[in-house]
Amino acid sequence: MRVKIKDLEKLLEDYKEIALLGKINAVLGWDLSVNLPEKAAEGRAGQTAFITKLLTQKWLDEGFKKRLEGLSKQFKSKKNKEIENALIRNLEHEGKLYLKVPSEILIEFSETTSRAFMAWQKAKKEDNFKDFLPHLKKLIKLNQVIADHLGYKENRYDALLDLYEPGLTTKNTKKIFDDLVPELKNLLKKIQKSKNYENSLSLSKSLRREDKNYLEQDQIQVALFVLRRMNYDLEAGRMDVSSHPFTETLGSHDVRITNRYKPTDFVESIMVAMHEGGHALYEQGVDPQYENTPLDGGVSLGIHESQSRFWENQVGRSYEFVKYLTPVLHAFYPDQLYKFGTDDFFKVFNTVEPSLIRTESDEVTYNLHIALRFELEEAMVNEKIKPEDLPGVWREKMKEYVGAVPNTDREGVLQDVHWSHGVMGYFPTYTLGNLYAAQITEKMNEELELSELSERGELGTILSWLRSNIHQYGSLYWPEELIKKVTEENLSTEPFLNYLKNKYSEIYQ
Amino acid sequence: MRVKIKDLEKLLEDYKEIALLGKINAVLGWDLSVNLPEKAAEGRAGQTAFITKLLTQKWLDEGFKKRLEGLSKQFKSKKNKEIENALIRNLEHEGKLYLKVPSEILIEFSETTSRAFMAWQKAKKEDNFKDFLPHLKKLIKLNQVIADHLGYKENRYDALLDLYEPGLTTKNTKKIFDDLVPELKNLLKKIQKSKNYENSLSLSKSLRREDKNYLEQDQIQVALFVLRRMNYDLEAGRMDVSSHPFTETLGSHDVRITNRYKPTDFVESIMVAMHEGGHALYEQGVDPQYENTPLDGGVSLGIHESQSRFWENQVGRSYEFVKYLTPVLHAFYPDQLYKFGTDDFFKVFNTVEPSLIRTESDEVTYNLHIALRFELEEAMVNEKIKPEDLPGVWREKMKEYVGAVPNTDREGVLQDVHWSHGVMGYFPTYTLGNLYAAQITEKMNEELELSELSERGELGTILSWLRSNIHQYGSLYWPEELIKKVTEENLSTEPFLNYLKNKYSEIYQ
Repeated sequence: MRVKIKDLEKLLEDYKEIALLGKINAVLGWDLSVNLPEKAAEGRAGQTAFITKLLTQKWLDEGFKKRLEGLSKQFKSKKNKEIENALIRNLEHEGKLYLKVPSEILIEFSETTSRAFMAWQKAKKEDNFKDFLPHLKKLIKLNQVIADHLGYKENRYDALLDLYEPGLTTKNTKKIFDDLVPELKNLLKKIQKSKNYENSLSLSKSLRREDKNYLEQDQIQVALFVLRRMNYDLEAGRMDVSSHPFTETLGSHDVRITNRYKPTDFVESIMVAMHEGGHALYEQGVDPQYENTPLDGGVSLGIHESQSRFWENQVGRSYEFVKYLTPVLHAFYPDQLYKFGTDDFFKVFNTVEPSLIRTESDEVTYNLHIALRFELEEAMVNEKIKPEDLPGVWREKMKEYVGAVPNTDREGVLQDVHWSHGVMGYFPTYTLGNLYAAQITEKMNEELELSELSERGELGTILSWLRSNIHQYGSLYWPEELIKKVTEENLSTEPFLNYLKNKYSEIYQ
Repeated sequence: MRVKIKDLEKLLEDYKEIALLGKINAVLGWDLSVNLPEKAAEGRAGQTAFITKLLTQKWLDEGFKKRLEGLSKQFKSKKNKEIENALIRNLEHEGKLYLKVPSEILIEFSETTSRAFMAWQKAKKEDNFKDFLPHLKKLIKLNQVIADHLGYKENRYDALLDLYEPGLTTKNTKKIFDDLVPELKNLLKKIQKSKNYENSLSLSKSLRREDKNYLEQDQIQVALFVLRRMNYDLEAGRMDVSSHPFTETLGSHDVRITNRYKPTDFVESIMVAMHEGGHALYEQGVDPQYENTPLDGGVSLGIHESQSRFWENQVGRSYEFVKYLTPVLHAFYPDQLYKFGTDDFFKVFNTVEPSLIRTESDEVTYNLHIALRFELEEAMVNEKIKPEDLPGVWREKMKEYVGAVPNTDREGVLQDVHWSHGVMGYFPTYTLGNLYAAQITEKMNEELELSELSERGELGTILSWLRSNIHQYGSLYWPEELIKKVTEENLSTEPFLNYLKNKYSEIYQ
């Protein structure tokens, strides 16, 4: 039997208000991260909790639920159109949290995270894990409760992974890291043994020093230059400052990114701009007819991350793009950089070094940071580890995987914002993003001259390819389907490992 | 019969969500004015309209309405507590718009104003009144419809005045301006004939010139210095930039102000900070137990304006405060101002000159600008004037009242943001604010040494007096009651005219 069109239409009409509440929550959340006065956290938490309550009411509305259940029975009927199946599938996936988890839990979750975020900011600043611990404990507990309500086959953590990357399981994730970790550790070892390793490192350090004083106003200009070349629409977005950069869709034609600026470093804010810009371009490129429907926005965090990492790494850190950027760097930072050229910048953009901070880490060690977080999250959620032991375990694992051990929790367990937002099961999508990005690049290279376009700064042509192959579809295709449609292959670690080996054998020989 | 406590409690419980929706709308509105990307206006309008719809639903909820109607019957029963009467009175006043005006009208109003605001910004920039005209026409029509639904005794404009200043009528407003306008025109004439007039003007012009280049970063520092002296809590607020400065309460402990900076002028951003800071201090000073009740926030726009104008004029433009500020001005603007002293700054802070822009006008001509707007609004709302004729009438009236005629609509009819927000009946509250401020100052001077405190920069003591006499009460007392309670007098134009005559006879002899 085919879906009842009237029921579907009514459902989509009701969904519009769900979408609007989501966007309003995004405005509250963006403002929380960018602007909120210190004492206003409690009040804002109440506002977010209230919108979450309204959202829950919409999902739990009896008529809405019945129509959704009715349509679910016709899901994948052969008579349905592709778009109809996608709509039902996405409604079910998005509604899962509301339909399966009691609303008190969701309200408590929302209130807890607002407070936890403020506590995390303070704890990180003061390097005081103990002050964040009670919040973290509460959030682990809430995640466990939520996972149990959502249900799972093999592992409680599966229920959380699926929220961010539909279909992803602990087993598959483990397999990916089992493939990656030894290869990455091996590659890292080779790089560290290379005769160029120390050279590259000292070059990088000499260009990223206290006395360099790369002015914030200049960094903003360079970042905006790159974003404009990428065709990020600044009349439908903006770039602000936050302690942890992010991208947020606040409304129609309103996709904003944030950045951060360190006077010692000219590279990071460019990379952040390209990374967050990549997320934003995906959001800005979705077919406008999907607006305020369950097909709006990127399909999963993994695919989203593939877009951000593609722009950051495959374009931004390529020799050709660095070449294109060289005169701009000379113009903005004459005193600091005029003596250096593309070869130097390429090395600095791609320096491999075991480091403490995930967001500052290179492409080789990045996924080792993720492997650590994946293991810890899986262990927390399944109570294999006590939250108070996290700082210690963090240090051990860092030593084992990355070969660098933090002296402070600020540079250790407190470094990431995610847990303070109550988000667990999200980190592995970063690695998926890296794998997808490499796979997509392989395919793109069959049709475009990526290197030449990057060298000429013609990033618009690259964006057009992404728009027509990925962005326009929004959430029409599930990640697995989409990657198959784009690359004619299933997810694999091979293209990524090949990409790394090629690039870094060039730099380090 | 006494009010039914249970009904009142239930009403207050429901009202909490009304208050929350109001704050959420404030976040959306603040972001609209401070941050919104150009293309996002339509989407934001939809969000605001949706929140307005939810607000309307709350007010129109059958149970809520019935309880309110029931309690209204017991209003002012002798057995009620003061606070209970105030709660009922405020609920009725705030609910009036929702209970008397059909919700479609309110939704249309909200959508229209979001678009009109963006159109006004563009029209003002391009000096193109015609592009704003259709929006203005629609908003006049909507105001007429709203006024007719609200009801009035004598004049349709009364219904709108009462929204902003409970109890204010066209007749009383007319009487105030009939008192003020001839006195102010007379005072202005005397000042213009004074031998110091040209001196003061040329001094002021020599300090406000293109080549002075007062840097934004310095102006921000000076403004923040003054705000800190006023005890504005920057951990429960912030100062941003918008084309038209405003104060907004976005949540608990979240009262934000905006400012604007012109490289030619060091005075305006100080005055804006003190003005908006005055509004913000009133909001920050309300008894916390009133939070999210109908007693929260300032009681009326007139009283609110008395607080902003008090800090701006009675403190900020006093000789003593200017003296206190002198070293700070010398420190921040050495090249531009070091040759000048307190006597010079006092003149510059208080230069009287017929000018085109209300917000830049002096204390003598300010209320003449308001008289003009009052007349035009009353005429628009009662269809005594065609909207297309406004630019012309504006020029005529400016000549008659202020003696300055704008060459562009940007400096004429398009200068103020209010109409683009659909707000008519608001302007007269500015004049009330000036009158209240002078009356309050007279009283304060009986108990405090205002001049000495200003000279020593001890603004905290002044704030304490305002907190205990005015701020803490929030909306407990109606404006008329409050001013009587504070000053033991009814509203009068005399203290204000005396204040002006004293101050300006000192400057201009």
